[in-house]
Amino acid sequence: MTGKQDLVESVLAGKRLPLARLLTLVENDAPEGRAALDQLFTHTGRAHLIGVTGSPGSGKSSLVNQIALALRNPTDGKPARSVAIVAVDPTSPFTGGAVLGDRVRMRDLAGDPGIFIRSMASRGALGGLSRATTGVVQALDAAGFDIVLVETVGAGQSEVDIARLAHTTLVIEAPGMGDDIQAIKAGILEIADILVINKADHPGVDSTVRALRAMLELGHPTHHRAAAGSTAVLWIPPVLQTIATKSEGIGELVDAIYRHAAYLHETGAWQLRDRIRLQSELEQLVQLELTARWQDSVSPELLQATLSMIEARQISPYQAAIQLTHPLPEPHSG
Amino acid sequence: MTGKQDLVESVLAGKRLPLARLLTLVENDAPEGRAALDQLFTHTGRAHLIGVTGSPGSGKSSLVNQIALALRNPTDGKPARSVAIVAVDPTSPFTGGAVLGDRVRMRDLAGDPGIFIRSMASRGALGGLSRATTGVVQALDAAGFDIVLVETVGAGQSEVDIARLAHTTLVIEAPGMGDDIQAIKAGILEIADILVINKADHPGVDSTVRALRAMLELGHPTHHRAAAGSTAVLWIPPVLQTIATKSEGIGELVDAIYRHAAYLHETGAWQLRDRIRLQSELEQLVQLELTARWQDSVSPELLQATLSMIEARQISPYQAAIQLTHPLPEPHSG
Repeated sequence: MTGKQDLVESVLAGKRLPLARLLTLVENDAPEGRAALDQLFTHTGRAHLIGVTGSPGSGKSSLVNQIALALRNPTDGKPARSVAIVAVDPTSPFTGGAVLGDRVRMRDLAGDPGIFIRSMASRGALGGLSRATTGVVQALDAAGFDIVLVETVGAGQSEVDIARLAHTTLVIEAPGMGDDIQAIKAGILEIADILVINKADHPGVDSTVRALRAMLELGHPTHHRAAAGSTAVLWIPPVLQTIATKSEGIGELVDAIYRHAAYLHETGAWQLRDRIRLQSELEQLVQLELTARWQDSVSPELLQATLSMIEARQISPYQAAIQLTHPLPEPHSG
Repeated sequence: MTGKQDLVESVLAGKRLPLARLLTLVENDAPEGRAALDQLFTHTGRAHLIGVTGSPGSGKSSLVNQIALALRNPTDGKPARSVAIVAVDPTSPFTGGAVLGDRVRMRDLAGDPGIFIRSMASRGALGGLSRATTGVVQALDAAGFDIVLVETVGAGQSEVDIARLAHTTLVIEAPGMGDDIQAIKAGILEIADILVINKADHPGVDSTVRALRAMLELGHPTHHRAAAGSTAVLWIPPVLQTIATKSEGIGELVDAIYRHAAYLHETGAWQLRDRIRLQSELEQLVQLELTARWQDSVSPELLQATLSMIEARQISPYQAAIQLTHPLPEPHSG
């Protein structure tokens, strides 16, 4: 038995240290991690993937904590679920800002074998982070976690990427946002399956709820999206209020998550979202593979000479790209 | 003379309507726009590209307004500069949130022929927006604008992308940010050439200045970056205070922008940033070209069959990507 098979089998057996080692390999884009993911892929497709996103200052991390605790300790007779939390920080490309988040979380969740927490900070392009996150989520799915919560910091494209990754997307806001945030909300709202106003004991909660409901009624995009799965059942994103620091409203939120999962299964939307996610992943990997092979085949001298011509404004970047890729390089033996 | 040459020559002659038409072609990724950009590229490389980024609610748009007004109406004997403003909204992928921004700006800046304003909202992937922005900025550069201000909404990877695009990056904050924003700042600070605390009449400005200075001293990354251009001269990002709504502090900010441009020219960093930007653009275009040709050559039936195998967890997305791209397709005649 090779070490690689050991790793795969240990992860499938639910062992934590090999899982952590695998995630590091995946994050580093190591060939060993890639090979293990290939073997583990047949065991994926069972976890409920939940994306959690929203404005900075909305208390996302505390809320994710509370959701995880509620899923672990259900009070309504439902079975306890195993939960993996992936905290992605695409806004911190150079520094490891996610470390503090871990420490804060650990106090509530540490010691529970049904909880696994992983922080990821971007070390390069967003594309790299998004690919690593896909791999990490697949590994956690294969490792048997019932629910994988992917939490992201920031307000931008990363949210849309996470919505593509998730079965269910929670958008978290806090009361009393500035005018500037309205524009953001418009885009973010359209990816929300469940809207949460956290810090609901802060002033301005009623007007925030009203504003969000009004924007929902303006847009209705999730209704259209839901209708793609079935014309009989529509999912209307609920607007919920929580106070994560006091554990208030968490039961209703978890209930909405379960209802959304049931809705996805009943309408076929679960499979549809799966397919969209896997297609997007395939396209990304094809693009990377084509580029990697081109890079292996192009002469560095030619590339530098071309770049100097672009700098001297003798040839446009687009013209250079056509020249450098036409004709396509011969396939590599590797 | 063809219509395409008309368009190019009209843009070079400084005509506004053809410029607006070209930008629409570029935004829509139309072949006519691409061809015009190829011709215009030899006329680029003169404009000072300034990226403006920062937290929602920091008053970025008002500040960009004031900077443009000050560049148009210098009080210190400097020549008036022509200014193009590109307002990019990557957080609004589905709706046109940028329209309001235009209307607000128009009141101060409309009617001045030395000012040109363009709003761009993301209509798809961030990659598409980033590419369109590159093209729009090149067109404005070729059209002869002395300064191109690229303003972005949101806090995330888009900021880092804009820093790659710009000679000078302004990061705008407002006093009294929440704890959650600290993590963002750490990443954003490292791309800042000039830090601005706008709304400096709001409470908490002193502690925000102190926090930013402390983080700057912790990191020093811009110092290292500057040192790549010259070991003799270092650029230490100034921390400035402005009140855009009262036009306060704008003169000092514009002065810092001019000093940064002089620094870039003296140290060779201007050319270095140019080269990095053009190299990144070339790499993106090569990737797109390779992918487009692969898409033209692959059979849709094979693609669908492969996707179904992935969905059934019979083959991993990575294994499928290798199979679908190996051997590479024959070069197209197109």
